[in-house]
Amino acid sequence: MRGAVIHAPGDVRFEPLDDPRILQSTDAIIRTAVTCVCGSDLWPYRGLDTVDEAHPMGHEYVGFVEEVGSEVTALRPGQFVVGSFATSDNTCANCRNGFQSNCLNREFMSTCQAEYVRIPNAQGTLVATDEVPGEEFWPGLLAVSDVMGTGWWAADAAEVEPGSTAVVVGDGAVGLCAVIAAKERGTERIIAMSRHESRQNLAREFGATDIVTERGEEGVARIKDLTEGIGADAVLECVGTAQAMRQALHSARPGGNVGFVGVPHEVRIDGQELFFSHVGLRGGPAPVRRYLPDLLDRVLTGRIDPGKVFDLTLPLDQVAEGYRAMDERRAIKALLEP
Amino acid sequence: MRGAVIHAPGDVRFEPLDDPRILQSTDAIIRTAVTCVCGSDLWPYRGLDTVDEAHPMGHEYVGFVEEVGSEVTALRPGQFVVGSFATSDNTCANCRNGFQSNCLNREFMSTCQAEYVRIPNAQGTLVATDEVPGEEFWPGLLAVSDVMGTGWWAADAAEVEPGSTAVVVGDGAVGLCAVIAAKERGTERIIAMSRHESRQNLAREFGATDIVTERGEEGVARIKDLTEGIGADAVLECVGTAQAMRQALHSARPGGNVGFVGVPHEVRIDGQELFFSHVGLRGGPAPVRRYLPDLLDRVLTGRIDPGKVFDLTLPLDQVAEGYRAMDERRAIKALLEP
Repeated sequence: MRGAVIHAPGDVRFEPLDDPRILQSTDAIIRTAVTCVCGSDLWPYRGLDTVDEAHPMGHEYVGFVEEVGSEVTALRPGQFVVGSFATSDNTCANCRNGFQSNCLNREFMSTCQAEYVRIPNAQGTLVATDEVPGEEFWPGLLAVSDVMGTGWWAADAAEVEPGSTAVVVGDGAVGLCAVIAAKERGTERIIAMSRHESRQNLAREFGATDIVTERGEEGVARIKDLTEGIGADAVLECVGTAQAMRQALHSARPGGNVGFVGVPHEVRIDGQELFFSHVGLRGGPAPVRRYLPDLLDRVLTGRIDPGKVFDLTLPLDQVAEGYRAMDERRAIKALLEP
Repeated sequence: MRGAVIHAPGDVRFEPLDDPRILQSTDAIIRTAVTCVCGSDLWPYRGLDTVDEAHPMGHEYVGFVEEVGSEVTALRPGQFVVGSFATSDNTCANCRNGFQSNCLNREFMSTCQAEYVRIPNAQGTLVATDEVPGEEFWPGLLAVSDVMGTGWWAADAAEVEPGSTAVVVGDGAVGLCAVIAAKERGTERIIAMSRHESRQNLAREFGATDIVTERGEEGVARIKDLTEGIGADAVLECVGTAQAMRQALHSARPGGNVGFVGVPHEVRIDGQELFFSHVGLRGGPAPVRRYLPDLLDRVLTGRIDPGKVFDLTLPLDQVAEGYRAMDERRAIKALLEP
């Protein structure tokens, strides 16, 4: 089969790879229906994470079960399945607490921009749809496996409640999905921070009521103007930089919450500043598995369409162009079709 | 009148001071019934906070209303009142959200180890008891004004729930009151971290089910042993040092919560470590005012007795000895009687 391999920053190639095979009795092999490029894939692509040696890429997928290990009794070949970038047995203490992305047997997916993928912990990770959904649903279901699940988690971690005011920091695919999540959870006012017109438009379509284009302390001042001078109830930090985290912490009201879902890079939080702010903080890799049944239902009933974050569709063999387009911000998110 | 003044680290004197008087129409003057020395008073006493010039000390008090400003209509001279170390108008947006210790008109109390005290924002800050309580209740009510209110907040911030497992880091008065709070909130297992026999005994009397004497990573390992290997649902950090915060963060399970109520000194939190831990974090000065009606009721009905944290009682004019005894850990907390 063929798949994407990163050789160095800026150098992603689509090349022949060994077919994945069942390594453990809890594995499954899936044939990729659609996959995509993630904002977090840009960290190594931009050289902000090191690339010590060439390795496959990709952690988002929906597909068809091709083969299952002997312990995978609840799945059968031919089923259409949705998973998560973090695999989970869905039975350990952390899974039972709803933190499947911290499963004691967790493996992070990293080979999904390919024609076939091995899924560890398949039974606990994959959710099969009742029937094979129409192709028009595939982008939305693919989004659920990562960016929509992560946006939902941002809202959950920020304890978004009906009637509250939420700020979304970051206008990438996760930020835009976080707007969907805030809207679905009954937020009254959703302030999206964005400087890009196409992203502002999508944010508004997803439910944003206000757009703030300013950044840094100016951005914070605009948020305060919109929130009785005290800040927002909930802030969904969907970037991961020190600047974005500072923006988020300063935009939340005393007693409000920041949910942070972008992997933090060079972020240090001053304990005394956090203390006097009274702001609650929770982040982490999204426990997508917890939300899968609910989010699949929302997509398949047409209630939400997070697939709209894909504004570029390419054949999988043009994966390198997907990286380039996202790196240059020509695309929000690139869908890849095998 | 007379009161305590710190002149330099280690140098607290009881000396003549001007009588406090009404400065604003929202002030009240109270005659101190009892006051005390706080663990946080030891920061400047030990030179860990700077003492640039001599200044009065103390922020815990219960007392009798002596005089009120013209806007203080709900209080009258002679009433017995309990307040908080942070004053609040109890009407601003932050107060309405339950974060009175972040009141937009907040003033921190700092002159309470004295015979008379001026209370700003008196109407929003002070709660009067129906009648003057017996002197046997005064220590408990005094505790409510700070350490018990703070222990309750630690449990609240750590989202302690019935049936959960809680760890209390810190065996000072706040930590011991946090044990009371965890118990009252229905925690099934309360693990107190303490190396001091008298404090361990009081922790057990207050409801601790387990004592852990180890510290650092050894302490964390003991907590994991007691919690299915994953850590506690809730950790109540009642110290404020970098070591205590590290201990707390490492003792919470993925998805668990740390409530931190000791003013952080030199605490830096690594964003990426917090992210992958999935631990929720909230701290700050306790919004004691929010809890006052409930906690007064629990003390006056005899349901809780946080006054037991006072294991040394001195005449107010021996306040310096109170500092010494606490600094040398001869006393958990010193009660001062004018």
